[in-house]
Amino acid sequence: MRLGTLALDGGSRAVVVRDGRAATVGEYADVGALLRDGEAGLAAARRAHEQADGAHDAAPQRLLRPVLEPGAIVCVGLNYRSHILEMGRELPTAPTLFSKLPRALTDPTAAIELPAVSERIDYEGELAVVIGRAGRDVAAADAWSHVAGLTLMNDVTARDFQRRTLQWFAGKTLQASTPIGPVIVTADELEPLGDRELVTRVNGEECQRAPLSDLVFDVPALVADLSRLVELAPGDVIATGTPGGVGEAARRYLGDGDVVEVSIDGIGTLRNEFRSAR
Amino acid sequence: MRLGTLALDGGSRAVVVRDGRAATVGEYADVGALLRDGEAGLAAARRAHEQADGAHDAAPQRLLRPVLEPGAIVCVGLNYRSHILEMGRELPTAPTLFSKLPRALTDPTAAIELPAVSERIDYEGELAVVIGRAGRDVAAADAWSHVAGLTLMNDVTARDFQRRTLQWFAGKTLQASTPIGPVIVTADELEPLGDRELVTRVNGEECQRAPLSDLVFDVPALVADLSRLVELAPGDVIATGTPGGVGEAARRYLGDGDVVEVSIDGIGTLRNEFRSAR
Repeated sequence: MRLGTLALDGGSRAVVVRDGRAATVGEYADVGALLRDGEAGLAAARRAHEQADGAHDAAPQRLLRPVLEPGAIVCVGLNYRSHILEMGRELPTAPTLFSKLPRALTDPTAAIELPAVSERIDYEGELAVVIGRAGRDVAAADAWSHVAGLTLMNDVTARDFQRRTLQWFAGKTLQASTPIGPVIVTADELEPLGDRELVTRVNGEECQRAPLSDLVFDVPALVADLSRLVELAPGDVIATGTPGGVGEAARRYLGDGDVVEVSIDGIGTLRNEFRSAR
Repeated sequence: MRLGTLALDGGSRAVVVRDGRAATVGEYADVGALLRDGEAGLAAARRAHEQADGAHDAAPQRLLRPVLEPGAIVCVGLNYRSHILEMGRELPTAPTLFSKLPRALTDPTAAIELPAVSERIDYEGELAVVIGRAGRDVAAADAWSHVAGLTLMNDVTARDFQRRTLQWFAGKTLQASTPIGPVIVTADELEPLGDRELVTRVNGEECQRAPLSDLVFDVPALVADLSRLVELAPGDVIATGTPGGVGEAARRYLGDGDVVEVSIDGIGTLRNEFRSAR
């Protein structure tokens, strides 16, 4: 099942997307509201999915970020095994967590402004987990029952601000820099996850490719780890990190007109153009 | 003027506090709602303040955190000059920013649980800025016009989680760990700010003392810096960093029954007891 948030009648509505059509789910304004309503929201989504009455055109540009206001956006650094080893580092024993402010997010087809303040805007293609059910101290074995589904995120980063101090946050939270979506695919459609590959292309050229089996801390491990620190809430996003091949490795940053596509088989493609604000 | 949020009738209301009494301000549920209503909210607060009809007892334990759900909690590390120099480091050229999730906050008199997951819970007494007016690319000279007022925060930190990787976030965002308040004091009551001192006491013993003039990046500099990254929103919190004297320097962490008090002349005292969850 593919859950999304559709621009509709000047507002927005949670939808299930099927065969290019979207069916609204109850009166929920976004997937966040649907998830916060718990089992009732998911049951409504399943009914809409089965009735297959996609009354609305699910054109990509009408899809908004699925959760409009996540309560938490927690990101993971250094989480692809092959990339860590090729850098000559040791595998980490704990996930490197940092966060973005909710206002750093933008919609899955949005044109992204290259802000005048940074000269080193870079992409990071990532698998993102969306929490469906609250939980604290969740065991890894139970973690999938707290996951609503998976989506794509481009963890857009201002490398100059990321590196200006030891803490990455400043480079990770630029206003409306970080697209997410286009939809959340429920986990039952994606197993086994590890066989799938994450691919990032810039202007059609492949820059990142890695199997999800290469994650050092997989989805259950990350859900369990974060839930030791805080109570997970429906709509929370955990972005699982990026593999090798970012622009910075080649000292090549994004410029006006560049198009970045992040894809995972079975989830889809997140495609955004970058535009200079100068 | 002292703005707070009072537990009232099973809910909460924004209030102005004067002489131990609290007067409700309009129908706002908290200071966050008041600030998001812009000039109308502040005008209502001034009317309530001038009428001095404090109909309610402003007993400390009835005051909640002033902004129940800040859209951003951005913290600053390494920001007191004398502490940096005594550590033998050079003064930084940019503020070290990181963030906490909103769910890390708790109320100003709350008992704070020492979670079983950490053995190194530590205090950090801090001055915190609350944003009153939205803004992007704010000049330092205009920054005070975007500030609603100032309050106190104890940036409670799990040192073991702060240090487990290079990113501090995991140690900074424990659930309900971070008290803030008890009230927001408008800046007009506090100038000149630099003459005032921040003092932190543990079980009555002074552990931190520094003048606010010792900040490397002062309030206008921090507001200006953050506003280059994101649009500031009413209710946003910027915690300005802590001076020398944290527990970790002496390898002494908080234990069951410890009481931490953070004070600044003219703002007040934030006092919390810590209790073991084990």
